[in-house]
Amino acid sequence: MTELQSRKRIAYLGPEASFTFLATKGLFNSNEILEPYRTIPECIEAVSEGKVDLAVVPVENALEGTVTLTVDYLFHEVDLYVVGEVLSKIQQHLMVNKAQVMNWNNIEGVYSHPHALAQCHKYLHYRFSKVPLHQYSSTSAAAKLVAEHPELCIAAIGNASSAEKYDLEIVERNIHDFHFNHTRFFVVSKKNGRLSIEESEGKPKTTFMITLPSDVSGALHQVLSVFAWRKLNLSKIESRPLKTGLGDYFFIADIIADEEEPMMKGAVEELQVLGCTVKSLGTYYTYLTPEN
Amino acid sequence: MTELQSRKRIAYLGPEASFTFLATKGLFNSNEILEPYRTIPECIEAVSEGKVDLAVVPVENALEGTVTLTVDYLFHEVDLYVVGEVLSKIQQHLMVNKAQVMNWNNIEGVYSHPHALAQCHKYLHYRFSKVPLHQYSSTSAAAKLVAEHPELCIAAIGNASSAEKYDLEIVERNIHDFHFNHTRFFVVSKKNGRLSIEESEGKPKTTFMITLPSDVSGALHQVLSVFAWRKLNLSKIESRPLKTGLGDYFFIADIIADEEEPMMKGAVEELQVLGCTVKSLGTYYTYLTPEN
Repeated sequence: MTELQSRKRIAYLGPEASFTFLATKGLFNSNEILEPYRTIPECIEAVSEGKVDLAVVPVENALEGTVTLTVDYLFHEVDLYVVGEVLSKIQQHLMVNKAQVMNWNNIEGVYSHPHALAQCHKYLHYRFSKVPLHQYSSTSAAAKLVAEHPELCIAAIGNASSAEKYDLEIVERNIHDFHFNHTRFFVVSKKNGRLSIEESEGKPKTTFMITLPSDVSGALHQVLSVFAWRKLNLSKIESRPLKTGLGDYFFIADIIADEEEPMMKGAVEELQVLGCTVKSLGTYYTYLTPEN
Repeated sequence: MTELQSRKRIAYLGPEASFTFLATKGLFNSNEILEPYRTIPECIEAVSEGKVDLAVVPVENALEGTVTLTVDYLFHEVDLYVVGEVLSKIQQHLMVNKAQVMNWNNIEGVYSHPHALAQCHKYLHYRFSKVPLHQYSSTSAAAKLVAEHPELCIAAIGNASSAEKYDLEIVERNIHDFHFNHTRFFVVSKKNGRLSIEESEGKPKTTFMITLPSDVSGALHQVLSVFAWRKLNLSKIESRPLKTGLGDYFFIADIIADEEEPMMKGAVEELQVLGCTVKSLGTYYTYLTPEN
């Protein structure tokens, strides 16, 4: 296990002001070089090819991407490790041009990314049921539109940094339907280590990708027995198709333990005896980014 | 259990020519009225409020949406049932303006939705590593751009129906990296029934949403024991945060069995005795849509 050193080049899923950018900026100090990449595979390949030291990519519940792509790419295409995990609260605000602050109750259109509009469905339905919704390619592009049209009584939905960047006024905060909703990002590296950043939350977590020997009834139950009798707690489990055909699966399991613990080593050995293949993404800590 | 009758109004995640539209059109005959909705919650609410009979929404690995939204909305917000499941193979093709067919090896730009570009990462990297990629709001909008510029040597990536709609020539088929990759859609209804469509694939499937009594180590293992000793096979399991705070979860389990079978009834009873809450989305069949 090596402590990772600074000053690093860090790829993130762009563009600038994306939710991944905010998570990346929130985690690292201003010393690092942050480089936007256009797609999740490009971010991951940049690490694999040594162009950057780390990449930050969404892995769960993100606005920007098909997140199964992150998991599948890490499983099928590269041998990289997770050195940290970032949780970022999803916060959507209603914002208008400063020239229209007095009129915001009478807005004639709401502009945002389709996922952001979807995340605020109940608020919009209850509060602005007659107001047309317009889909834009990003929350940032919607904010830009509102900024460029002070004469129009329209609103955008997005995060606080969009409001700041385009000098808009937030007239209603936290209009998203589900609270406690986080986007989760992986920080990936070629080296199996841990970020040398303090202020992490909770206990170390290990992610295993486990392929079962065959599609037998109860095979997953057998796998979970290996963890259960050792009192190793899973914080997440998900099955994913292997892509070799329908009916074959691998499992992503997050275990609240360090892979160097004797119980974890015993679990991996036992899984291998059972005929499972275990690919470890390593042990890492969780970081929360500040509200935005 | 009621057989659903025709002629139905069916909501789908739009716009027209979206992957959800293709899945919906592939499943139902031309008799039905297909209505595009802008977001997943709007599709689901349209069923809940009785505006339409059915809705088709992506649930796994889709291009269009944050699919956790579908699962979370069905769990938290409504009491609806799944009456059918559609699997649609993801196929991405490279297409050019018919005026540029002879020059396609020298294309100077590739346009598509960011997810479609990501899904073809390896092909583009290997074949057109120097060619700039441009993100567009949809694969369909990218195809339209290529159609409107016969003078430019550019290409779009999208499905066959985009090529057909905008009269483009497909110059390379199936350029997506992962084959056997499907988008999965739920057909949801107010009534717990099954689609009266023949040509379904395989055995009936039941989806349960199971809340564990508390976040105990091994609780999931206990839940799986209930299915394992009955030889009830799970085709998918995934944990989702309950949104009541970090650390609380529910599980989505797909079981290859009819919920009316005695073994399934026994399993549900036993889960309830263990303190679990079980929300059933019903038993349904799987349909494959034709290639496109």
